[in-house]
Amino acid sequence: MSTLQTPVATTAVLPPRAPATSLAQLDTPALVLDRLRMERNIAAMRANLGRFDVTFRPHVKTSKSIDAVLALFGGQPGPITVSTLKEADHFAAHGFTDILYAVGVIPAKLEHVARLAGRGVKMTVLLDSPEAARGLCERAAALGARFDVLLEIAAILAAGGQNLAGVLTHAGDSYNCRSIAAIKLAALQERDAVVLCASRLRAAGFSCATVSIGSTPTALFADNLDGVTEVRAGVFVFGDLVMAGLGVCTPDQVALSVLATVIGHQKEKGWVLVDAGWMAMSRDRGTSRQPVDQGYGLVTDLHGAPIADLMMIDANQEHGILAHRSRDPLKTPMLPVGSMVRILPNHACATGAQHGAYQVVRGADTAIEAVWQRSGGW
Amino acid sequence: MSTLQTPVATTAVLPPRAPATSLAQLDTPALVLDRLRMERNIAAMRANLGRFDVTFRPHVKTSKSIDAVLALFGGQPGPITVSTLKEADHFAAHGFTDILYAVGVIPAKLEHVARLAGRGVKMTVLLDSPEAARGLCERAAALGARFDVLLEIAAILAAGGQNLAGVLTHAGDSYNCRSIAAIKLAALQERDAVVLCASRLRAAGFSCATVSIGSTPTALFADNLDGVTEVRAGVFVFGDLVMAGLGVCTPDQVALSVLATVIGHQKEKGWVLVDAGWMAMSRDRGTSRQPVDQGYGLVTDLHGAPIADLMMIDANQEHGILAHRSRDPLKTPMLPVGSMVRILPNHACATGAQHGAYQVVRGADTAIEAVWQRSGGW
Repeated sequence: MSTLQTPVATTAVLPPRAPATSLAQLDTPALVLDRLRMERNIAAMRANLGRFDVTFRPHVKTSKSIDAVLALFGGQPGPITVSTLKEADHFAAHGFTDILYAVGVIPAKLEHVARLAGRGVKMTVLLDSPEAARGLCERAAALGARFDVLLEIAAILAAGGQNLAGVLTHAGDSYNCRSIAAIKLAALQERDAVVLCASRLRAAGFSCATVSIGSTPTALFADNLDGVTEVRAGVFVFGDLVMAGLGVCTPDQVALSVLATVIGHQKEKGWVLVDAGWMAMSRDRGTSRQPVDQGYGLVTDLHGAPIADLMMIDANQEHGILAHRSRDPLKTPMLPVGSMVRILPNHACATGAQHGAYQVVRGADTAIEAVWQRSGGW
Repeated sequence: MSTLQTPVATTAVLPPRAPATSLAQLDTPALVLDRLRMERNIAAMRANLGRFDVTFRPHVKTSKSIDAVLALFGGQPGPITVSTLKEADHFAAHGFTDILYAVGVIPAKLEHVARLAGRGVKMTVLLDSPEAARGLCERAAALGARFDVLLEIAAILAAGGQNLAGVLTHAGDSYNCRSIAAIKLAALQERDAVVLCASRLRAAGFSCATVSIGSTPTALFADNLDGVTEVRAGVFVFGDLVMAGLGVCTPDQVALSVLATVIGHQKEKGWVLVDAGWMAMSRDRGTSRQPVDQGYGLVTDLHGAPIADLMMIDANQEHGILAHRSRDPLKTPMLPVGSMVRILPNHACATGAQHGAYQVVRGADTAIEAVWQRSGGW
């Protein structure tokens, strides 16, 4: 394997500048995390789940940040859910030893799982078909490994010498609910389905220690978790406009935003142009399927205070168009060139993934308390 | 500034594996670039522009890759267009010395531009309002710098001692054309508008050396570039399904794809699940606004040959759902778990941005010829 020869640099790399100490000093666009809001979001989740005897196993795919996930556990590692083995590697390297890989595993990825397990990480994997179970058993035999598996299919695994750890479900339909009552119903259905499955497995003679449910809406609003042992949830930690559209949070509880600078205007259209486009916001337009479409996001000032009805109505790669929700050109405040705003995103997982780090602030204060790195890729 | 203390790693980082030598050995998802198709796309653009006396200044925001951009110039640096100053830094550090920053510049970014210029890079910036021009002149005076500026507004700049380098336009409307005839008309309008602007500036006594147009559709199909000195275009180098939907290329000319592995099925629905979701594809659904909606992408086999009417109809963060275009469950080929496919993307710029590197292959050969790194961030 080779790469094309590239010419020797003829210009020196720019010298590093001193780190920014406040938002106003940052190059934009930049990803901002309000730690105060995040801590309140964590407290709200803990408050609901504290009523039940369940393990909380947050999904780290939202933040992909060691610091943010430690904050979920009061500063120490705890049980986590991951969406990629890259995340598992990253968190294992920082002391996390109890990891659920919550995407159906294939035989080709089991060697990677086994290596993590061999280093002392309790890895749990997920299967959802007899074929996948057979494939796992074959590869496990070749590796001389025994995996902890969550699933609905038991007979094949037991025959293959693997450990049926339990059953898992995800109330994805809760993202389409239109009221808290509907979310509470979805939570009840999620709980009933997985508990029934566990009881049938036990009646058939299988152990089923783990009974795992999870989604931010159902985890926040569940009233009955009898028989459930574990709850997963991810996006609650930051919140976003899709969650706000469900009534799960309000926009002023959203902890994540993209800092942007005004770069121009098209006054006759009532447009304010900023230097954050879809590369910084992501192409996620999740609220377009909700009753209130928030475009590419809602605009706040530098301190996080909303600017009424100002939203990012469209985006190119590196610039966004801000306008009043009504599209009335006279109603858009013509923020001066050079002024800074923050944009609350449709979907925290997607927007976060466009950035390498979080600039951490606290509430309305624009001082940067910390910079938290994100993990990415596969 | 401080970061939270993170615990010392209790598990060693996994040892590096030998680099993959063919696609089948890669961890998925992974970004694949077919160099043969890319070279043909470059040749097609060169063939059209070779008929005119214009400078070609490709936009590097699509590939963000030194290797891919060198391939545009036969292996040597040439004049480029960038969408961020991070791209400018990256390409300047690799010997590119003629850079157009094609997003409206604000005073806060001029120091960065001046530093690049001070290292021998010919930097050209863009302005689109009198306010921005005034701001540039003020900051330029403070920096003791003189910038080359492309714009439509001349009087303010001349007064501020700056250099009016010329005029620039971008035929963004060409992305909404529904026929090659419509694209040719858009190209003519683009050319006419910018040439008229240049002639008026010259009539008013201003020099206007650069007359710059650009968009992939108009650059590929322009028949008349009289008076134009420079052409920019970006996405043509890879092509994508949005461009195919315009008739600008065909799906079998698209050089970029995402390699994915089948991880499961939902047979009753006719679904094949793969381990590439929106994180790997991006959330870009550009074809949803075109006559033929291609979902999250069209599926090919490992060698790049299309699998008829198989597309990614929906995506979660880390898995995608493949199904037949008709949604008839019986028509979806139930590709076995573990088999690999490639997904052609809606929008090459957006999909590329989700990855750190290109796995470079040639045509139907799955041997990896090279790994090309991408630049990212801001």
